[in-house]
Amino acid sequence: MITIFENYLKTQGITLSDEEIRLISAAAIEKTVHRKEFLLKAGEVCRYKAFITKGFLRTYRVGPDGSEHIIQFSPEQTWTTEGESYTNRTPSAYSIEALEDSHIIMWSRDRFDALLDQIPALKAFSEQLISRNLYSSRNRLYKAISTTPTEKYEDFLKTYPGILLRIPLRMVASYLGISLKTLIRIRQTQFPHSVK
Amino acid sequence: MITIFENYLKTQGITLSDEEIRLISAAAIEKTVHRKEFLLKAGEVCRYKAFITKGFLRTYRVGPDGSEHIIQFSPEQTWTTEGESYTNRTPSAYSIEALEDSHIIMWSRDRFDALLDQIPALKAFSEQLISRNLYSSRNRLYKAISTTPTEKYEDFLKTYPGILLRIPLRMVASYLGISLKTLIRIRQTQFPHSVK
Repeated sequence: MITIFENYLKTQGITLSDEEIRLISAAAIEKTVHRKEFLLKAGEVCRYKAFITKGFLRTYRVGPDGSEHIIQFSPEQTWTTEGESYTNRTPSAYSIEALEDSHIIMWSRDRFDALLDQIPALKAFSEQLISRNLYSSRNRLYKAISTTPTEKYEDFLKTYPGILLRIPLRMVASYLGISLKTLIRIRQTQFPHSVK
Repeated sequence: MITIFENYLKTQGITLSDEEIRLISAAAIEKTVHRKEFLLKAGEVCRYKAFITKGFLRTYRVGPDGSEHIIQFSPEQTWTTEGESYTNRTPSAYSIEALEDSHIIMWSRDRFDALLDQIPALKAFSEQLISRNLYSSRNRLYKAISTTPTEKYEDFLKTYPGILLRIPLRMVASYLGISLKTLIRIRQTQFPHSVK
């Protein structure tokens, strides 16, 4: 798993010495999260930064009426952490659940903070990641308030090609903030041959 | 204006020495942006971090159909910067416009970066701000995909009490991602006496 993470760091343009990679690896915990298991449950404090080497997870929150709202899909080669809970050590409003058997590399907050202090390149990369998350969250918000359900769905297919093979339609609807009924109608109108 | 900013820093729990405050002040540019003037226009590169000491601005983006979508309202004692454009030195997709005559303190990126290097407490605070922005953007996204138009409006009134006295209803609708017609209907249903 660590090799996958090392390769990922290279693709991100972050150059680390062998000694730095050894430090990061030594601090890491490897974990398998089976399908339908939780990496984090709402109400718990998020104590780890997690990188996914294989699999697929979702971050969601349950509304007052019991319905699930998916705020993030996390495929392999991405990070998943509930930042607010992690930073403030407060109970998380969100749950992180594996949608497929997943392999994770995790760092506890104390260990990750120590790495950030020791390795300036990791610190700079970590800041970049938080900024990138902010931009993509803002961009998704812009789309949420500005586009029609049909545009949302088309954009989703472009952003996550192949994702429909991995998750049920109701989760797509939950992520887009539209009803399953609306999503089915859109698919029937847009792609009448493929879904009938 | 600088005094307002110094007081703001104190309320945020950031303790700076007199020398540090002098450095931050010396690097700052003060600016007045009149109502309907722009602090940043879409297509320009955002070159400043800006703090509002008085007034009220909005950050918005124009959709392909020419409609305006407001992603952020910025009252006094808050920051407004188009982070993605600022960090990557790329043209901004968003415009920042004054809705009232506003007083701004700004720092150019080079000067602000120098301050971050010189003043660790400012650096830590700046990181905190970016994280907080991320959480609030995520939270707003959650609300955008999970709540009804009526709930969005009620939540908006709680988050921004008094704001309706400062901006036209159509901007509230634009911020909430609902039509003006829907917003007017909600107000008539929820508060029949006050808006008839």
